[in-house]
Amino acid sequence: MAMMKRAASSSVRSLLSSSSTFTRNLHASGEKKKIVGVFYKGNEYAKLNPNFVGCVEGALGIREWLESQGHQYIVTDDKEGPDSELEKHIPDAHVIISTPFHPAYVTAERIKKAQKLELLLTAGIGSDHVDLKAAAAAGLTVAEVTGSNVVSVAEDELMRILILMRNFLPGYHQAVKGEWNVAGIAHRAYDLEGKTVGTVGAGRIGKLLLQRLKPFNCNLLYFDRLRIDPELEKEIGAKFEEDLDAMLPKCDVIVINTPLTEQTRGLFDKNRIAKCKKGVLIVNNARGAIADTQAIADACSSGHVAGYSGDVWFPQPAPKDHPWRYMPNHAMTPHISGTTIDAQLRYAAGVKDMLDRHFKGEDFPEQNYIVKEGQLASQYR
Amino acid sequence: MAMMKRAASSSVRSLLSSSSTFTRNLHASGEKKKIVGVFYKGNEYAKLNPNFVGCVEGALGIREWLESQGHQYIVTDDKEGPDSELEKHIPDAHVIISTPFHPAYVTAERIKKAQKLELLLTAGIGSDHVDLKAAAAAGLTVAEVTGSNVVSVAEDELMRILILMRNFLPGYHQAVKGEWNVAGIAHRAYDLEGKTVGTVGAGRIGKLLLQRLKPFNCNLLYFDRLRIDPELEKEIGAKFEEDLDAMLPKCDVIVINTPLTEQTRGLFDKNRIAKCKKGVLIVNNARGAIADTQAIADACSSGHVAGYSGDVWFPQPAPKDHPWRYMPNHAMTPHISGTTIDAQLRYAAGVKDMLDRHFKGEDFPEQNYIVKEGQLASQYR
Repeated sequence: MAMMKRAASSSVRSLLSSSSTFTRNLHASGEKKKIVGVFYKGNEYAKLNPNFVGCVEGALGIREWLESQGHQYIVTDDKEGPDSELEKHIPDAHVIISTPFHPAYVTAERIKKAQKLELLLTAGIGSDHVDLKAAAAAGLTVAEVTGSNVVSVAEDELMRILILMRNFLPGYHQAVKGEWNVAGIAHRAYDLEGKTVGTVGAGRIGKLLLQRLKPFNCNLLYFDRLRIDPELEKEIGAKFEEDLDAMLPKCDVIVINTPLTEQTRGLFDKNRIAKCKKGVLIVNNARGAIADTQAIADACSSGHVAGYSGDVWFPQPAPKDHPWRYMPNHAMTPHISGTTIDAQLRYAAGVKDMLDRHFKGEDFPEQNYIVKEGQLASQYR
Repeated sequence: MAMMKRAASSSVRSLLSSSSTFTRNLHASGEKKKIVGVFYKGNEYAKLNPNFVGCVEGALGIREWLESQGHQYIVTDDKEGPDSELEKHIPDAHVIISTPFHPAYVTAERIKKAQKLELLLTAGIGSDHVDLKAAAAAGLTVAEVTGSNVVSVAEDELMRILILMRNFLPGYHQAVKGEWNVAGIAHRAYDLEGKTVGTVGAGRIGKLLLQRLKPFNCNLLYFDRLRIDPELEKEIGAKFEEDLDAMLPKCDVIVINTPLTEQTRGLFDKNRIAKCKKGVLIVNNARGAIADTQAIADACSSGHVAGYSGDVWFPQPAPKDHPWRYMPNHAMTPHISGTTIDAQLRYAAGVKDMLDRHFKGEDFPEQNYIVKEGQLASQYR
């Protein structure tokens, strides 16, 4: 029924020339909404920082604002399986908010069950936890807080490049174990200066990374569908590479900065890793599924990849036996780079803004849309 | 006797107007020298990298060159106590080469015993392992390879700032322990952007750090004896602070970038740490003794210092029970930041160059001198 309604409204929209606010206006007449937020639990950490709004307990700091308008706001971290809290609320949720750090996987089946669903919001960046085609077909809107944590992720990438290049972790392990063996660290520690760093993808995050890398006097390369504006390219000092497979063998460090799409899923498989320089360092804060899990673990074991660091896995949370937890020379963390306190405050504000616009039937900032009027954003097509 | 000789030659020099090469010329007549190098052991790592010249086995890559000229070259890591290899060779060594990573402590007593000593070289930067006053009084020359690893150290400092600011290590620990608790990391992870970073000391390393920090959009402050050249200051965008104690409370991050001198020993004691902002992050790749060991450990335990990272300790190697190994929120390593493979190649080349000049009776690059003609370099006075 709702499917029908959404499909119908979608058809109506396609008949109207300037109809972008029409569907949302259907829901903007003071109707009380049910909003479901899926975040990671704060537990004992929830009370330690008043700005820790990104956890279940913090609930993006919008509970009072939502409830004062008569909306219902369910917040949970329980997201997997048929008995989960999320599953229970899917049939009558109007809005689902999730994050990449603890993603609510909104599959085609869940979309089918979500008869009242209008809007899927990502508190952060990256909406690949949603079946975007199914969402588009169902006439849903999917949007994220574009830009909310790009600086956070870019900073974190530079940290990971340095951690691998400087061989930090073996040194740290010695410090805590009471050891002192400089040679065990120094024999494979290098300066970043003078090395070749290539980013696969130079969108918002990739560009910020390149800008931060500039004073390190590296040889900077980037591969992307689109070339950076020539003036910015000159300012950053990065060289455009048209062919990914031609760029890879030149790189001492490879940073993955693409969204997860049908084109990028499994991009770093066994064959592509083999094209990289022996001893390459790889940083991936983009999405775990862009790399082939076993191929990365094997290449770390063989030494072809001399270090791998990232905060993204598939699935998330990563299971206890995920190979990336145990492979040599890794510097992995759970998915955190985009959820600093600063980022949380920005994406919470962005979600609130979009909810407010949704209730009022107003458009979102154009760059936030991932699915709008049945159309996927260009990078997901 | 040698003391007398050195004192005499020192007096002679002071009588001659242009005498800087005179003393060294005494030793430059093709005389065969005994050179003692004190480095860290490479052990099983020595053979893993042909450029690993900084270890005992690598011996700075100058053995063949020295021996082909008839010089004797002793290399060891055994440096402590009366039965050590170093001690054995002190009486007839002409040159002692050491590094800050595994320093040969050249005390006043050792200088007294070193009757033939002419030259003390530091492969790297920082000659505080030498009793400089005693060396000056004995007419010795002390020199280091200024600039050889400043980039290496500055890069490493930026890594440590990010590791603390982003709360990397708790995340890494979760990854290896099979855990997934984003809140445990995120509740105290921040962006570097927008934070205030102050460097105590803005010499070669401090300036390089500030340049690398610039694209991070921080508020940059520096305290130093000397103000940076106005144009460079403007380019870097850092603000000069005349009063250290007035700068400290403004800083979210403090980086120590001074040499260890009589003025800086114990600079970060209990009182000065109390002047820092609660929750401050401190990075110290300069020298361990610039901070009071117990005061830092106490401040980490109380939370006044929210994170401390550095690669310098006192003494070195750090004993197993050094408090910095066990305090909360540290990101310590053995002394490694200045001994990347790139840095080793540079300081090995610098040592070779100075030895060559010494044999030929030529002057060193002026900025390399720490003690020249009985005079300490300005920062040590």
